[in-house]
Amino acid sequence: MPSDKELFNQHISQQFNDELEEIRTQLLEMGGLVEKQINDAIVALIEGDAKLAQQVREKDDAINQMELDIDQECLRILARRQPAASDLRLVVSISKIIVDLERIGDEASKIAKRARDLAEDGQAPRGYVECRHIGHHVRRMVQEALDAFARMDTEQAFSVAREDKAVDQEYKTAMREMVTFMMEDPRSIGRVLNILWVLRSLERVGDHARNVAEHVIYLVKGTDVRHIGLKRMEAEVKGSSAADE
Amino acid sequence: MPSDKELFNQHISQQFNDELEEIRTQLLEMGGLVEKQINDAIVALIEGDAKLAQQVREKDDAINQMELDIDQECLRILARRQPAASDLRLVVSISKIIVDLERIGDEASKIAKRARDLAEDGQAPRGYVECRHIGHHVRRMVQEALDAFARMDTEQAFSVAREDKAVDQEYKTAMREMVTFMMEDPRSIGRVLNILWVLRSLERVGDHARNVAEHVIYLVKGTDVRHIGLKRMEAEVKGSSAADE
Repeated sequence: MPSDKELFNQHISQQFNDELEEIRTQLLEMGGLVEKQINDAIVALIEGDAKLAQQVREKDDAINQMELDIDQECLRILARRQPAASDLRLVVSISKIIVDLERIGDEASKIAKRARDLAEDGQAPRGYVECRHIGHHVRRMVQEALDAFARMDTEQAFSVAREDKAVDQEYKTAMREMVTFMMEDPRSIGRVLNILWVLRSLERVGDHARNVAEHVIYLVKGTDVRHIGLKRMEAEVKGSSAADE
Repeated sequence: MPSDKELFNQHISQQFNDELEEIRTQLLEMGGLVEKQINDAIVALIEGDAKLAQQVREKDDAINQMELDIDQECLRILARRQPAASDLRLVVSISKIIVDLERIGDEASKIAKRARDLAEDGQAPRGYVECRHIGHHVRRMVQEALDAFARMDTEQAFSVAREDKAVDQEYKTAMREMVTFMMEDPRSIGRVLNILWVLRSLERVGDHARNVAEHVIYLVKGTDVRHIGLKRMEAEVKGSSAADE
């Protein structure tokens, strides 16, 4: 039979686990909302829906507040529980991931602003296909990065980082097309520039999804894979020795 | 006379203080380098110096590495020292500030890339005055944010946050001018777009300087002033009650 002290420790430990589970859940909720914001911003752009665009902009405050709340809870856990090893990595990773989620929310809000301007001032003559395509791509990356976090899946996290390269390529191609088009039709410059800013925001969303994925790899493996390149990252994830790059 | 135990505790406490002092110093070093990168990137742009631009791009790796090193040291301190209260706030603030410094470094590298393209493909017909002006403005903000950190000066931190509003305004005005100019002279679109991206990067540097300033206020006051607006921020810094906004 456990002693009183053991029961007390079990109790504390159970409380601590509950707290960790709670911030994990909150992060996934915040992530779900951010993902929806990206989706709604793209829909508002494609469909010229100024009302939906406005809703996206208004919801940004709620995301900012979630960042502050989760961050405060992380700090409270650091101060009171003094977590070690994998618990510490979880708390630190969460406090980093929410920064990227908040920035993704910012980009959704920026896209919504451009969508509203375009809905009000008249549609751009080009670029919607590209925005929809890249938009869906980066939204899926955000979703998969969150999924990788939920399931502690480093392979999936790595595949998100790899996708970011593809997005960068799609972005460059789309930008070149838009610039060519502006030169051919200078009267459309103002409106096409709105599309340019949307493309830029989407590319940034891809970067942040990659950051989230890198934090997931750190959380699971304990290795910081930022700034090391895809090859070495893959070696870390697959557990083989780091390849030259 | 102090007992052995007291001497031991003093010793540990001295070591801990040394460690905290060490990461503070490292942060300020990283900040100094980032500030120089911004400065060099602007000079490379204004003077059409492709070689200097290339140097800025090459130095970005060193900044990335500093971020990783300081972050690892912060984590080690969290794990081994389990800091509380203001020590905990210092470690957490440092781990957040270095993220913004690294991003400022990224923007400097992006500006350098545009500077190189312009030096090689021919200068843009407009926009250098604006880039120099806003460039100096945001560089000063970075400098002052770091200074506020070094001296734990919340008034100075607040003034950095306030400056960011002015930069946003300057940015908008400059962007409008560039768009008008592109419409008047479509052949220059490609080169003026490079200036547009530089302006955008500079505006982002201002945002990051503001973030650093907000972390300084948190560090000193213990209040999270992100996302609350300038008026409430000012009330927090000056210690009066929060004004309606």
